[in-house]
Amino acid sequence: MSPTLLPLAAEPAIDTSATAFVIICASLVLLMTPGLALFYGGMTRAKSVLNMMMMSFGAMGVVGVVYVLWGYSMSFGGSNIGGIIGNPFDKFGLKGVVGEAAAGSTVDADGVAIVDVFGADVWIPEVLFVGFQLTFAIITVALISGAIADRAKFSTWLLFTGLWVTLVYFPVAHMVWGGGLLSGSEDGISAKIFGATDGVANVLPIDFAGGTVVHINAGIAGLVLALIVGKRLGFGKTAMRPHNVPLVMLGAGLLWFGWFGFNAGSELAADGLSSLVWVNTTVATCAAILGWLLVEKLRDGHATSVGAASGVVAGLVAITPACGALSPVGSIVLGAVAGALAALAVGLKFRFGYDDSLDVVGVHLVAGLWGTLGAGLLATEGGLFYGDGIDQLVIQVVIALASLVFSAVVTAIIGLGLRATIGWRVTDDDETAGIDQAEHAESGYDLVARGGRIGSASAPDLSHDARHHDELTSEGVKA
Amino acid sequence: MSPTLLPLAAEPAIDTSATAFVIICASLVLLMTPGLALFYGGMTRAKSVLNMMMMSFGAMGVVGVVYVLWGYSMSFGGSNIGGIIGNPFDKFGLKGVVGEAAAGSTVDADGVAIVDVFGADVWIPEVLFVGFQLTFAIITVALISGAIADRAKFSTWLLFTGLWVTLVYFPVAHMVWGGGLLSGSEDGISAKIFGATDGVANVLPIDFAGGTVVHINAGIAGLVLALIVGKRLGFGKTAMRPHNVPLVMLGAGLLWFGWFGFNAGSELAADGLSSLVWVNTTVATCAAILGWLLVEKLRDGHATSVGAASGVVAGLVAITPACGALSPVGSIVLGAVAGALAALAVGLKFRFGYDDSLDVVGVHLVAGLWGTLGAGLLATEGGLFYGDGIDQLVIQVVIALASLVFSAVVTAIIGLGLRATIGWRVTDDDETAGIDQAEHAESGYDLVARGGRIGSASAPDLSHDARHHDELTSEGVKA
Amino acid sequence: MSPTLLPLAAEPAIDTSATAFVIICASLVLLMTPGLALFYGGMTRAKSVLNMMMMSFGAMGVVGVVYVLWGYSMSFGGSNIGGIIGNPFDKFGLKGVVGEAAAGSTVDADGVAIVDVFGADVWIPEVLFVGFQLTFAIITVALISGAIADRAKFSTWLLFTGLWVTLVYFPVAHMVWGGGLLSGSEDGISAKIFGATDGVANVLPIDFAGGTVVHINAGIAGLVLALIVGKRLGFGKTAMRPHNVPLVMLGAGLLWFGWFGFNAGSELAADGLSSLVWVNTTVATCAAILGWLLVEKLRDGHATSVGAASGVVAGLVAITPACGALSPVGSIVLGAVAGALAALAVGLKFRFGYDDSLDVVGVHLVAGLWGTLGAGLLATEGGLFYGDGIDQLVIQVVIALASLVFSAVVTAIIGLGLRATIGWRVTDDDETAGIDQAEHAESGYDLVARGGRIGSASAPDLSHDARHHDELTSEGVKA
Repeated sequence: MSPTLLPLAAEPAIDTSATAFVIICASLVLLMTPGLALFYGGMTRAKSVLNMMMMSFGAMGVVGVVYVLWGYSMSFGGSNIGGIIGNPFDKFGLKGVVGEAAAGSTVDADGVAIVDVFGADVWIPEVLFVGFQLTFAIITVALISGAIADRAKFSTWLLFTGLWVTLVYFPVAHMVWGGGLLSGSEDGISAKIFGATDGVANVLPIDFAGGTVVHINAGIAGLVLALIVGKRLGFGKTAMRPHNVPLVMLGAGLLWFGWFGFNAGSELAADGLSSLVWVNTTVATCAAILGWLLVEKLRDGHATSVGAASGVVAGLVAITPACGALSPVGSIVLGAVAGALAALAVGLKFRFGYDDSLDVVGVHLVAGLWGTLGAGLLATEGGLFYGDGIDQLVIQVVIALASLVFSAVVTAIIGLGLRATIGWRVTDDDETAGIDQAEHAESGYDLVARGGRIGSASAPDLSHDARHHDELTSEGVKA
Repeated sequence: MSPTLLPLAAEPAIDTSATAFVIICASLVLLMTPGLALFYGGMTRAKSVLNMMMMSFGAMGVVGVVYVLWGYSMSFGGSNIGGIIGNPFDKFGLKGVVGEAAAGSTVDADGVAIVDVFGADVWIPEVLFVGFQLTFAIITVALISGAIADRAKFSTWLLFTGLWVTLVYFPVAHMVWGGGLLSGSEDGISAKIFGATDGVANVLPIDFAGGTVVHINAGIAGLVLALIVGKRLGFGKTAMRPHNVPLVMLGAGLLWFGWFGFNAGSELAADGLSSLVWVNTTVATCAAILGWLLVEKLRDGHATSVGAASGVVAGLVAITPACGALSPVGSIVLGAVAGALAALAVGLKFRFGYDDSLDVVGVHLVAGLWGTLGAGLLATEGGLFYGDGIDQLVIQVVIALASLVFSAVVTAIIGLGLRATIGWRVTDDDETAGIDQAEHAESGYDLVARGGRIGSASAPDLSHDARHHDELTSEGVKA
Repeated sequence: MSPTLLPLAAEPAIDTSATAFVIICASLVLLMTPGLALFYGGMTRAKSVLNMMMMSFGAMGVVGVVYVLWGYSMSFGGSNIGGIIGNPFDKFGLKGVVGEAAAGSTVDADGVAIVDVFGADVWIPEVLFVGFQLTFAIITVALISGAIADRAKFSTWLLFTGLWVTLVYFPVAHMVWGGGLLSGSEDGISAKIFGATDGVANVLPIDFAGGTVVHINAGIAGLVLALIVGKRLGFGKTAMRPHNVPLVMLGAGLLWFGWFGFNAGSELAADGLSSLVWVNTTVATCAAILGWLLVEKLRDGHATSVGAASGVVAGLVAITPACGALSPVGSIVLGAVAGALAALAVGLKFRFGYDDSLDVVGVHLVAGLWGTLGAGLLATEGGLFYGDGIDQLVIQVVIALASLVFSAVVTAIIGLGLRATIGWRVTDDDETAGIDQAEHAESGYDLVARGGRIGSASAPDLSHDARHHDELTSEGVKA
């Protein structure tokens, strides 16, 4: 879906419906990261909730800035090196996207370039496409953080986010969505396997909204990082229960809500397909709740709230690549299987001994793989179950494995490099006492002070005031 | 508002503005159910917050799947039996809505049927109308759960949700919105009383967004179920205070936000009327806050937060049927009265001894009735107070009572049937200890572990890890 | 941006894309106030969280009603007195906006007037413009409440909200946005300084979405009120830590999300400019997170969660006036400086001894001033740094100072008047025990009851049931 610029001297004609739609959808996707922070934060122990949330908020800070500077250009830049990466200087700092027009194109009266991303004659401001894509980069990095809860230095995490989006996310986005190696372009791998007609691969890889770019990518990166960073103290020996389950469910609710922007918005237009995507997204998620709860009930005797919330996310992940290619009934099947599979998969970490703390692997990698492959089975056009042969499934396996391997290798290099230099872990004492105090000098809650005498030691934790640490000690109390 | 399909061979012409608008509105309405889970969850005691939230999330799972399979067809299916129910097989599994076109109609390039729901020449994808309506079915069932907080088996609840939407919600939706008995069609009850012209009743019943279908329906079902399930242990003898009021207020905020999709979205187009609906929805809610708080202040001496949050919901409920028929000033009147009325009505359960735990009756039934009847008083066209006589009020009373009686009777049959078979209540011991542990093997919060020694008994509640119960005991700790 | 009514007998032609967009944007802005309630509520101590949230919810009640009655007319009424205020009777109760058309204009089939606010030939229902503007009035008043946390009588606060919007907000909105003294009209101050051409000032003041009207206005009012109401007991002597930091971060996330409606929606159309605004809003906020955290890290040794959440708000505040005038890279600069500046500014209250409890001054006044002045530096057209001279900066200083002085003086009159009559403060005992109990007879949390024996004194706080105080004591328990 490489954007086509409005040709020189053409009449600027923004599709205002699509523009309204995508502005709101981008807002929805942006909300997903705070939603994820709540989902993850509620699942940690109380002593590390803030660090968990800060990994998401920190990622927002770094990735947002980086995306405008070189991220968009690396993802969707015009030229690219062997189909793996866009040219970071091509649109550096959104050159040609806003302000002066790029060579051979025109801008509208507000100085914004206008693009037709899918060649479907739906023209939107390119800067809006930048904004929409920016939100995907943010959430993908933030997803990884769940794998290394409670134990990673915040400074290392921030550095990792900048390196990882640059060296992993932008390349994968370019390969799959930017007309690169894993796209349906005539230079892509599908065209090489199955041939191409009129510059388009005969078998188009299906990844509507990010099964490979977002979920397989983040899921495998989470696994690699969990292995590199190492287990939490006490992992597998003591129950580490979610400290605030209503927060988890709130997070799941906000993620679901935001995911409509993610999936339906990926059509970049409000039409029949984005309407179908909306329904598929919803019913797959509903079915995934039931799938997860059923596994729990049969296996453990109880259907849990954390299971329902996780089922929501598993269903959303699985339908993400497939949402434009399935029927609603097919989406129910895909979702139910996704919920059940992920419910089974979250136990793997105990069996194999990797501490993927909040189940990035069990949910995002497993459901992301299932959704990407499942599209090869259940697509109403091309799906194996619809009697259209195995070609679609083959190309789905190829793009899934290619992005998985690429992400695994480069993530390992970054992760090991950081381990060898500035290090990943806080000290054991800090981890035991709680990373919130150690890294942020804060604690999540102070609920005991209710009705206490002001000024007395009613709060059991005598740490500094969260916002005004310095002022209070140097100006206030000492004065 | 039975949808008209695009005729055979007509030029497909989706209204992209309306489509964008309804996609976002459907997303907003979907968010209302997690919002409701928070609103209700915060009002329970801490030991039952998760079960309360799970009733909403479980309803999402069941109703979402059911709606696609037979719900839409039963609500808006072409043929119907005596105006009470649509044919469940007509559009089973969204047959004719996506994929192959129904007889005599065309589909667009993406294979979706296009419909004009109100005959107003605004064409949207039918699958989007399905999605929008699906969200209404979910929230309506979820609303009922507040009446039976803290004491119902989760499995019975899930079964109830499937039965109730099928036997109560879909019929009422069909009667009111699907061109059935309580609609303004020439076969409807209004036409029988007041006559019809050109196939439309002379006095159109007013229920813009679901006063009857959603609120009266859920409200009376809540009352019936509260009576059938019986009181909580200790009801009326001990204060059962909301355990987390900020959660209640958050829930109210999300409900308000989502309700814009509910009310304005029900116009299925972005135009002058949906704009007016937006303002009416807002100001009625603002006035209802004031109405509720004033009653509390005068009666109890204090205006409470739970009162403000409940006032929000009461105002939203009351304006729901009336929002398209009133002026903004009329909406202020309607809302203020709704807030005051509901504030008075929530005390009825103590007087009459039914344990409608979270006030589904006091808020949804009472404000829903008031809003439906109030439309007969305050409608700028047809309202008694505008000098247009009593006809509108009469038909409002008729549709309110008809849906109330229908819902009460069928809900009672379902509720009693479940009581006689699998049973509704958890054991008294489980209820006393807390339904979250009994039904879900979880507890909502573990806030004490802050800074505790990992592995020590820092958490007072030694229940299993919420997500990994089985793995931890069989693989982790024992290994 | 005074709205132009559709002329008599013109063809009604609502722009449905813009209407859809603004309906959703208004919903987003409405959500900001509950989001603010969480942001502020989490920062207070547990014993005053509900009162803090109630200040926001109470403001919604009062301002929503007032806006429809006389607020819109005072802000955008046709006639005005010296450019300071609109005529409150002109459109009282939305006369001419809905229902019968105003003289010389037409209404559409639904009886709503249609307006072109910017003279850009984008026509939307005037009632929608009312709704959009209403949400701005609500949030602006609510912002002030953070300055007087934990100590103000709720009844005084409610009265203040009604007086302040009427005497401060509506005039400032009229002056800046309603074609008044601080607007770019030929009667405005800019035209008087720099001259006008064709009825428009040669140098147009830049305040895209409310740097002056909302943030400087609320920020200075907060400072004045903090001085008038006086310090919390124990201010500067004891740390008053946020009691629930995840709530603060949730609030910041919802504010960010809602702010897209605030900024991009202020264009009142979905086009290239609102797309650019979206991206500028996002990247300025991302940069502000980094700016704030960097100052904290360098100064205190730790980057905090409350800092990240506050950085979000500071970035959003600063970009608000400037979002339509900067490039994305310029927005990064503006945001980074805003985050750093506000991080430094929140310490001022300890130095100068005013108890602006939740940093309305440090965040809204300082970042609001910076954003308004920064637009004079960084605007791609007119900015000093782009070599366009100092005129733009001069007019930015003028509108910033004028609104600051006006707001300070009138707020002081209202605040002092209330202090002299009904009084601002709860008693010292009530403040010490907690304002939630004193003013609302509630407490925020009852988390201890988990698994406790029903009916025993498991809850440490034996206050009344929040919703049913009266019923329980008079009907339930005593019966």
